[in-house]
Amino acid sequence: MAKPTKPAGDLDRGHMAAALGLARRGLGRTWPNPSVGCVILDAAGEVVGRGFTRPTGRPHAETEALKEAGDRARGGTAYVSLEPCAHHGETPPCAEALAKAGIARCVVAVGDPDPRVAGGGIAILERAGIEVVRDVLRDDAAELNAGFFRRVIAGRPLVTLKLATTLDGKIATLSGESKWITGPQARAIGHQLRASHDAILVGSGTVLADDPELACRLPGLGARSPVPVILDGRLRLPLSARLARPGTWLVTRADHGPATLAPYRQAGMEVIQVGDGEGGLDMASLMLALGRQGLTRLLVEGGAGVATALIRQDLADRLAWFQAPLVLGNDGMAAIAGMAVSQLDRAHRFTLLSRQEAGEDSFAFYRRNGS
Amino acid sequence: MAKPTKPAGDLDRGHMAAALGLARRGLGRTWPNPSVGCVILDAAGEVVGRGFTRPTGRPHAETEALKEAGDRARGGTAYVSLEPCAHHGETPPCAEALAKAGIARCVVAVGDPDPRVAGGGIAILERAGIEVVRDVLRDDAAELNAGFFRRVIAGRPLVTLKLATTLDGKIATLSGESKWITGPQARAIGHQLRASHDAILVGSGTVLADDPELACRLPGLGARSPVPVILDGRLRLPLSARLARPGTWLVTRADHGPATLAPYRQAGMEVIQVGDGEGGLDMASLMLALGRQGLTRLLVEGGAGVATALIRQDLADRLAWFQAPLVLGNDGMAAIAGMAVSQLDRAHRFTLLSRQEAGEDSFAFYRRNGS
Repeated sequence: MAKPTKPAGDLDRGHMAAALGLARRGLGRTWPNPSVGCVILDAAGEVVGRGFTRPTGRPHAETEALKEAGDRARGGTAYVSLEPCAHHGETPPCAEALAKAGIARCVVAVGDPDPRVAGGGIAILERAGIEVVRDVLRDDAAELNAGFFRRVIAGRPLVTLKLATTLDGKIATLSGESKWITGPQARAIGHQLRASHDAILVGSGTVLADDPELACRLPGLGARSPVPVILDGRLRLPLSARLARPGTWLVTRADHGPATLAPYRQAGMEVIQVGDGEGGLDMASLMLALGRQGLTRLLVEGGAGVATALIRQDLADRLAWFQAPLVLGNDGMAAIAGMAVSQLDRAHRFTLLSRQEAGEDSFAFYRRNGS
Repeated sequence: MAKPTKPAGDLDRGHMAAALGLARRGLGRTWPNPSVGCVILDAAGEVVGRGFTRPTGRPHAETEALKEAGDRARGGTAYVSLEPCAHHGETPPCAEALAKAGIARCVVAVGDPDPRVAGGGIAILERAGIEVVRDVLRDDAAELNAGFFRRVIAGRPLVTLKLATTLDGKIATLSGESKWITGPQARAIGHQLRASHDAILVGSGTVLADDPELACRLPGLGARSPVPVILDGRLRLPLSARLARPGTWLVTRADHGPATLAPYRQAGMEVIQVGDGEGGLDMASLMLALGRQGLTRLLVEGGAGVATALIRQDLADRLAWFQAPLVLGNDGMAAIAGMAVSQLDRAHRFTLLSRQEAGEDSFAFYRRNGS
């Protein structure tokens, strides 16, 4: 039987914040698995082990932290940013490993909705007589795990739409000049965003205009570049584009035949076919296809057509909005196209999660209401 | 001779911040005069007098503070947010009053560019043997006095353009619904803005659409309602409008004759006539006319045509931009019309001065670069 639990205090929240910080390091590298952080204290309350999910998802955070703690884990406390797993994979479940190591108390930020876990991890802990404290920094943990949860629950990745606009919502002058609306500090944050996502989606128009690499151009983060995903219903992507290379996913219409697609496959690209929707590829089907591929966190970088379709269809779960302190006027190129919203209460609404000033620009991060 | 001065320390900055806070209370009520704050310490460093410019500009802050301090001013220190005046008006100059009261040290935030002062106040103090310390919190004081300085130097008021938009820069849906894009907390800040300005300018389109009163709808601030100024080149204002009343200024074209204007004058309105400019009344002439009327701080509330003209002509010195966390799409009504900017380096650039979250909305205050 589980012992009666004490309510979590500041000390618990402090250690859990550290576990969440560890988990955050793995974001973008553990898909299709969640990124978890674990901190282990010995019986005297000293930190003796720390771990986070390694790239691609193994070893788990608990395994890493227990390994570091060794015998000192006995009688100690484990802080985990997500309910420990209960299922046998390549290794025994983490919940069993924690019990076997003699952990006396386990503080869990949030339960794991994965049907293979879903309370099973906590049940294992409690059956082993471990005191379990739940829901410590639960909201922060839910946001950290939002991508993994979205895939488990809705079968699609969490979609973060990145925008860089003027104060009046423009992304380029009337003649198309867009480099650079935002400054170097904002762009550096943009590269950090890339590093914490599994994949980056752009429309083929962006590829044709900019021939981007979509890599993380920050020192030390080059190895973290996410999967490039190109939306290209009409197969406009030139095979000479930098992104026409192994590792790139090309999303196109379902009615293209194998012969048409052969050159892209020969270039090493993964081809994903989805049906048509309103004014282009069906976005909901696309997101489900990306979920089946294992993506949990998708960053969408352009262009205006993709952004508009995602917002209209309530698929833009987060907005990462960079705003430069300048005004271009309504003949500039709009970030979001027309959406035929005639009543204010039908506008697409978001809630600010965080904001930072970045050089002269502002970076605001929003959650879609209802997401 | 002045004694050698010591550099200003934290204590000086603290007292000066208090003087600036006092000065801020008078903003919007002292025009055409500046709003000044004064704090007086006795010889032992205790605060013994505080004052700020009374409505319409008299008595001055120093007079008020000296009256409160009485004999305890002797040997003390005076903190003034603006150089004390040097000219004889209804009362002797404040610089002389400070000397006569026996002030030993005077800390001045910023010099007064008014040609009747322009260093003359400081000269009087120094001739009286008072130690003068200058430029303490100078930037804050310059911003506080920006309206008065603008009128003294450029002959026109400081223009603050207020905008309330969605994230994508829209002020209404495609069908014109705009109430309310921002929430009650943002609107309360909007009323505080009104209270700190001498006058509010709106186009006649805004009057026709909303029939506003342009009053400060905040408890205790009703008496602070600024002068309503209506921009109405074509005389579309109905005499039945709430603003067609004594105290309102009507700005219209120079070519309307006295007979045409008689009904407005009979309704008690002040009629100001200015020449035509590009696409309407000439904004630069208008601002000079308002400067001649004594305005130092003008808040512009709408609509898009006025906003666009002011930004294009570099007359929008400050932007008070409220942003609601929603997206309407590019068929919504734009806050700023087309401005024919084809190169990014010709965009109108601003610098963030302050930002606050206001309920769900954000309020950002910008300074026009070069202003």
